[in-house]
Amino acid sequence: MTSTDDANKAPAKDPWAFPDVSDLVVGVLGGTGDQGRGLAYRLARAGQKVIVGSRAADRAQAAAAELGEGVEGAGNAECARRSDVVIVAVPWDGHAKTLESLRDELEGKLVIDCVNPLGFDKKGAYAIRPEEGSAAEQAAALLPGSRVTAAFHHLSAVLLKDPDIDEIDTDVMVLGENRADTDLVQALAARIPGMRGVFAGRLRNAHQVESLVANLISVNRRYKAHAGLRVTDV
Amino acid sequence: MTSTDDANKAPAKDPWAFPDVSDLVVGVLGGTGDQGRGLAYRLARAGQKVIVGSRAADRAQAAAAELGEGVEGAGNAECARRSDVVIVAVPWDGHAKTLESLRDELEGKLVIDCVNPLGFDKKGAYAIRPEEGSAAEQAAALLPGSRVTAAFHHLSAVLLKDPDIDEIDTDVMVLGENRADTDLVQALAARIPGMRGVFAGRLRNAHQVESLVANLISVNRRYKAHAGLRVTDV
Repeated sequence: MTSTDDANKAPAKDPWAFPDVSDLVVGVLGGTGDQGRGLAYRLARAGQKVIVGSRAADRAQAAAAELGEGVEGAGNAECARRSDVVIVAVPWDGHAKTLESLRDELEGKLVIDCVNPLGFDKKGAYAIRPEEGSAAEQAAALLPGSRVTAAFHHLSAVLLKDPDIDEIDTDVMVLGENRADTDLVQALAARIPGMRGVFAGRLRNAHQVESLVANLISVNRRYKAHAGLRVTDV
Repeated sequence: MTSTDDANKAPAKDPWAFPDVSDLVVGVLGGTGDQGRGLAYRLARAGQKVIVGSRAADRAQAAAAELGEGVEGAGNAECARRSDVVIVAVPWDGHAKTLESLRDELEGKLVIDCVNPLGFDKKGAYAIRPEEGSAAEQAAALLPGSRVTAAFHHLSAVLLKDPDIDEIDTDVMVLGENRADTDLVQALAARIPGMRGVFAGRLRNAHQVESLVANLISVNRRYKAHAGLRVTDV
């Protein structure tokens, strides 16, 4: 690169300059599961408007009532339709089927996949490799009209749900194809006290982030911990 | 589990009680590459006896002379033969071939694989999935007489090699099948100021740890950093 190129280059964008996301409505598909409830609770507690979705609207409403913090419950389709940002926290088993059935409702929306495809046997947890490469890439393939990102994989549901815990000591690796989308997801993660959203690559590198949860499960067992991850020097 | 079972159960072993490793000789195969040199330098600086190995003994000796700290250089076979613990830091391209050729020398030794199988294109780094599942599982398959572990994947060669840096702010995820072996690798990691060795599962979960380096490369590019990882709540 010559010095002329340098001079003509736009200054690098501040990687910590995020959009204001405080007015966005966040839907959580699978919002009655452990991870979904925990995320819904933390985001709502941070001031975000949150709607938890479930296949059965009444179960979603019951979960929402328990969570408090202004959380609403709805069937998955209504949850997706009313939300600006939709977190996918359904079990891996139902991942493809759920997303396929919501393709229209998720059109144009920012989708955050936080599903970890894992199997379990006597030796503990192990990674499952989806045909598409990762849960996030499966979502992107099934939802061509949505803006698919991946984040919130490494959070402990136990810590998220504990009302006595004020700060969650972890970073959130955020993956996606478009800077505007990943910036927005990072901004959302940063609303939860203790968390930072850290950009960590494109969706083609989502598999290892998703399946690292198998390792964190081993960590938790060995150290009787609720492990998270911090990215250092960032 | 009944209370009788509980009473008969041995108390859980302290996960931070490690063996003394200060007398072990550490070999570094691929010790003339960036990662190998950096690790050799840090371990030697921490007081460990280190031998760097290379295909060409004279190149290994030249690298050792540059590193100082009592590091010796040798051909790969001699390096393996003289070491108690052998770190595999060769390029992924030469991984299988190098290990196959050293099967006899590595018999009975503790092997620490730190190789990250990655590809690179215009979009950056991406994970390569070895047929065996991971570089570490390939090593275990090729070295049935060795005790294969995996660790030291996420270290910045730039930080490792910088003599002005006293502490490396990162944890080292350690994987393996036997507690005695992973304890020893954790003890070795802990000798380097700033580092902790954290047990992070069996070798079947090594692929995501190895390929997470692709994500750290994205982090480094975005934040102009030399990123590492800390495991929280541990």
